[in-house]
Amino acid sequence: MKVALVMGSISDWSVVKDTADMLETLNIEFDKKIISAHRMPNELQEFGQNAKNEHYSVIIAAAGGAAHLPGMLAANTSVPVIGIPVLTQALSGIDSLLSIVQMPAGVPVATVAVGKAGAKNAAILAAEMIAISDPKTYERLTEFRAQQTKEAIASNEQLHE
Amino acid sequence: MKVALVMGSISDWSVVKDTADMLETLNIEFDKKIISAHRMPNELQEFGQNAKNEHYSVIIAAAGGAAHLPGMLAANTSVPVIGIPVLTQALSGIDSLLSIVQMPAGVPVATVAVGKAGAKNAAILAAEMIAISDPKTYERLTEFRAQQTKEAIASNEQLHE
Amino acid sequence: MKVALVMGSISDWSVVKDTADMLETLNIEFDKKIISAHRMPNELQEFGQNAKNEHYSVIIAAAGGAAHLPGMLAANTSVPVIGIPVLTQALSGIDSLLSIVQMPAGVPVATVAVGKAGAKNAAILAAEMIAISDPKTYERLTEFRAQQTKEAIASNEQLHE
Amino acid sequence: MKVALVMGSISDWSVVKDTADMLETLNIEFDKKIISAHRMPNELQEFGQNAKNEHYSVIIAAAGGAAHLPGMLAANTSVPVIGIPVLTQALSGIDSLLSIVQMPAGVPVATVAVGKAGAKNAAILAAEMIAISDPKTYERLTEFRAQQTKEAIASNEQLHE
Amino acid sequence: MKVALVMGSISDWSVVKDTADMLETLNIEFDKKIISAHRMPNELQEFGQNAKNEHYSVIIAAAGGAAHLPGMLAANTSVPVIGIPVLTQALSGIDSLLSIVQMPAGVPVATVAVGKAGAKNAAILAAEMIAISDPKTYERLTEFRAQQTKEAIASNEQLHE
Amino acid sequence: MKVALVMGSISDWSVVKDTADMLETLNIEFDKKIISAHRMPNELQEFGQNAKNEHYSVIIAAAGGAAHLPGMLAANTSVPVIGIPVLTQALSGIDSLLSIVQMPAGVPVATVAVGKAGAKNAAILAAEMIAISDPKTYERLTEFRAQQTKEAIASNEQLHE
Amino acid sequence: MKVALVMGSISDWSVVKDTADMLETLNIEFDKKIISAHRMPNELQEFGQNAKNEHYSVIIAAAGGAAHLPGMLAANTSVPVIGIPVLTQALSGIDSLLSIVQMPAGVPVATVAVGKAGAKNAAILAAEMIAISDPKTYERLTEFRAQQTKEAIASNEQLHE
Amino acid sequence: MKVALVMGSISDWSVVKDTADMLETLNIEFDKKIISAHRMPNELQEFGQNAKNEHYSVIIAAAGGAAHLPGMLAANTSVPVIGIPVLTQALSGIDSLLSIVQMPAGVPVATVAVGKAGAKNAAILAAEMIAISDPKTYERLTEFRAQQTKEAIASNEQLHE
Repeated sequence: MKVALVMGSISDWSVVKDTADMLETLNIEFDKKIISAHRMPNELQEFGQNAKNEHYSVIIAAAGGAAHLPGMLAANTSVPVIGIPVLTQALSGIDSLLSIVQMPAGVPVATVAVGKAGAKNAAILAAEMIAISDPKTYERLTEFRAQQTKEAIASNEQLHE
Repeated sequence: MKVALVMGSISDWSVVKDTADMLETLNIEFDKKIISAHRMPNELQEFGQNAKNEHYSVIIAAAGGAAHLPGMLAANTSVPVIGIPVLTQALSGIDSLLSIVQMPAGVPVATVAVGKAGAKNAAILAAEMIAISDPKTYERLTEFRAQQTKEAIASNEQLHE
Repeated sequence: MKVALVMGSISDWSVVKDTADMLETLNIEFDKKIISAHRMPNELQEFGQNAKNEHYSVIIAAAGGAAHLPGMLAANTSVPVIGIPVLTQALSGIDSLLSIVQMPAGVPVATVAVGKAGAKNAAILAAEMIAISDPKTYERLTEFRAQQTKEAIASNEQLHE
Repeated sequence: MKVALVMGSISDWSVVKDTADMLETLNIEFDKKIISAHRMPNELQEFGQNAKNEHYSVIIAAAGGAAHLPGMLAANTSVPVIGIPVLTQALSGIDSLLSIVQMPAGVPVATVAVGKAGAKNAAILAAEMIAISDPKTYERLTEFRAQQTKEAIASNEQLHE
Repeated sequence: MKVALVMGSISDWSVVKDTADMLETLNIEFDKKIISAHRMPNELQEFGQNAKNEHYSVIIAAAGGAAHLPGMLAANTSVPVIGIPVLTQALSGIDSLLSIVQMPAGVPVATVAVGKAGAKNAAILAAEMIAISDPKTYERLTEFRAQQTKEAIASNEQLHE
Repeated sequence: MKVALVMGSISDWSVVKDTADMLETLNIEFDKKIISAHRMPNELQEFGQNAKNEHYSVIIAAAGGAAHLPGMLAANTSVPVIGIPVLTQALSGIDSLLSIVQMPAGVPVATVAVGKAGAKNAAILAAEMIAISDPKTYERLTEFRAQQTKEAIASNEQLHE
Repeated sequence: MKVALVMGSISDWSVVKDTADMLETLNIEFDKKIISAHRMPNELQEFGQNAKNEHYSVIIAAAGGAAHLPGMLAANTSVPVIGIPVLTQALSGIDSLLSIVQMPAGVPVATVAVGKAGAKNAAILAAEMIAISDPKTYERLTEFRAQQTKEAIASNEQLHE
Repeated sequence: MKVALVMGSISDWSVVKDTADMLETLNIEFDKKIISAHRMPNELQEFGQNAKNEHYSVIIAAAGGAAHLPGMLAANTSVPVIGIPVLTQALSGIDSLLSIVQMPAGVPVATVAVGKAGAKNAAILAAEMIAISDPKTYERLTEFRAQQTKEAIASNEQLHE
């Protein structure tokens, strides 16, 4: 099962790279793409409408400001879309967050946190969706989570050194 | 010269009706349409890409929440798009406002005030755009503004009765 | 495949009922439960840690204010958790939204819109996750979306009557 | 057809320079001016009331904080006014945005995004308004948009190198 | 010494009436006027520039939304201007507040609270300004404040009945 | 006539220095003091209650965060109090602004802009209050404003060099 | 051990009544008082400075808008002060919350939620503080919490009827 | 009497160190721990449920973003919990603040200011709680507060040098 990792502009790559790294950590196959909702609306539509046929199980889309990319992808497919609100200079990503999360009834976007934490979590959420029917991914997630817990516990010891 | 008055859902009509009334007051020809960005993405794209050929001089688009309609129309045409942020129940239209106004460089939306004031002003702004090259509309706007000033002055007298 | 529909208090049922209705529309089996993160922390933990064994494919959790239920469920399982921010009296649900969406790296919650739109969309998003590996659910979603588009188009005609 | 590019203070030039550059890119003739709404109210009024006679087709006005310049220009003319909310230190431009966009019924300001993206888009929006009746400008816009799309598509290729 | 009580529209009277009542309570002479910043810019300018000659000691101005009236009056006079941010439907007066208070260096507006409390306080603040050189008004203010304290203390007794 | 320039902590001096400089420019006599509302409540009360007897015409008070200094001074005197909201690290001064401006009916604080612009304007506003009965200060203000206008006009010429 | 339950105005009683009821439920002795920070500053100071001598173990203070009561009480005593931000009409209590919680280093206020939930929780928090050294109160709290959990569990059953 | 000083991650130590220093200044014994609500939910639960038996009188918990640590600790104990909202990159800690303070009726968290001021105040508030029944700690607090006042008064003299 394959994930599409879409971003609105090449400047988003610095954020989305964390998503890519986490997908690799979790052994999830993915393709990365730039599709600007506002500069490439035809490509957006075509990509959205073919996503199922191209065998994408999940789409992850990152965008900032009036962030229409995740919602417009969701408008064109029933493949689940995860939206990452990119931190913006003026309004700190609150514009990105509201533009992505406040979707009208009928067309959801699974929204994660603004910025880097959201970028990593988008990958984990995609893996969780895939793991619904893929025991290997579930196992890998379980290991990842156990490792994460171990590191958190270890940091407690580190605090006392 | 003709205006397209587009709304995301029939529930927006209660707001957009004020736009329609003002367009009539200013003698601007218009067509009204429902195009849901998220439920009718094909119609959106087709409408945007044909707007110039259909002889629309200006597009007015009203939407609420993650309001993608004005920005996605703008992504598909160089006809100027005016966006009306519809008042929402949860976040009072701040979501609508930011989703419409915070467009990335390259694709502007001319944004007006949240709610009823914005609905009326969208019509006046469309008339101002048309009036750039249409002296009759300019004249009508001048009369409208003079009338408006007269009424404001009259309300002052009313205050003292 | 089965969904768990969890709410923080019985007062959330008025919102979550829309989720239940939509799950039925989409023919998704679900169990509904009240688990208060703050009043029933043991039940929360037990439920989260057994969710996979109880064969839940997706968890939907609605909560308001300092809304810890979705995030704490996510902390206890790798089953994907969808969070619905419930509209609050004082701060209009912006507290619910930020408490749910701003999860730290490692533990995502798939957040949907504040209030009723989010409640419906949580069900659709759950169905989309299930549909990754369940062609029947995918088909049903496709029909639902087509129907939704048809109704939106019909509302346009209604506007002109 | 000529544009007036007005700013509230010389410190706004660092933002408005992007507007000037984009106007040149689009081959739109313009005059640039400093008119402080609060320090030069007479000049503001005179400028606004003569804008049509001075053959300005569009006015672009940038201001920050309690940004009254765009709205007060609009109060004095029926030439369309585009407002650019300048990013402020304390409140990140949310004060500029609300002071410009929330105009009362009767006197619109076409508001664009806070900061640099808005500065560029103000120029494009002005060009779109002029293009309503000026085929050459429309053509140039079409080329600009096509070029922009080409570059976005190219950036996708760049991502994969 | 005389106060000018200015409002942007007759709909503001329901708020400003509280200012008028308090001015009467404090025995401050005043004239009330409607001057719309956006519909009556000439009247605004003329009024501002003549305020000193018309022997106004203080100007109180109430406005909502993109509230330019107090700031533009201040731009035209060195008579102190008190601004009352009127509660708005969409954004609860946060737009009014920021449009009034965030004045640039050089032209202050003395801003009071959003809504009814601000309306009353504008009158008291005007009286305090007049009382700088008018012992009778100072005395009246002292009595008013003493009375107010007495009532607050009395309400404590009432609580225990 | 004399102004009291009060700040909550010595760290506010970097902001309030601009107020002091502007008071000197306008030839207004002033005393500067540190009175922490929360660390020196007795001094605050004593200072407020003696302000009139100490012949202060106006009090200027700067504070940040839960900024209680201006309001508590106002609670203890009928001398007009001007509040300067100091920019804060976490919430950018929105906390300072709301803590100062949202005073209940009965006890006003004349609030100016957050940060440096507000610091300068507090001095000008104090001068305007004094100028109600002091023609020399009025004259000085008029000159200052004329000079300010001249500089703004000059900056326009500078723009074209 | 005794609690002081203080409110800024009699209109806050509708909120604070819930605190009183909860204190009774938890068998905590208390005195209720109106002390307006802005109308009764002398009473505030006297009350704060005598609180320890009057054998108050905890002070609970409710206030709205520029809510200075809790912070100014805290400035006058080392008895712990719990602040309840009262819901306000214009800004929904965000002004109350920030005015109470954003205290400078040195003088804390223990802040609870805006509105009714906060009112109840202030009582429980006061009981928790008292229970540090009072086993009977601790026991009562434990029973209250167990009862609360039982009711939450029961509401789950009710959901399925 | 002993305080538990808990943080969600080792990166919070830079903030919480100020709490530790202040606890030492006030001579309060404490243990410090890392317990991530989302990565160590079992440890959280165990720690909360044993806090009383481990003889902790007060728990201080710092967390950022969707900050669930203080509220979930409170859900598991009747030992009073003080929450420190950590400043976040994207939303400046407003997410941390609302996630901590907006607790539902029944389970309070004593919330202090965002960031460093809050970190110091958490320690002072803990000492105030302990001082309810511990005269030595009360005395130390009184000395600390007196010293603090002395330094504030001294800074006033410093201002005039």
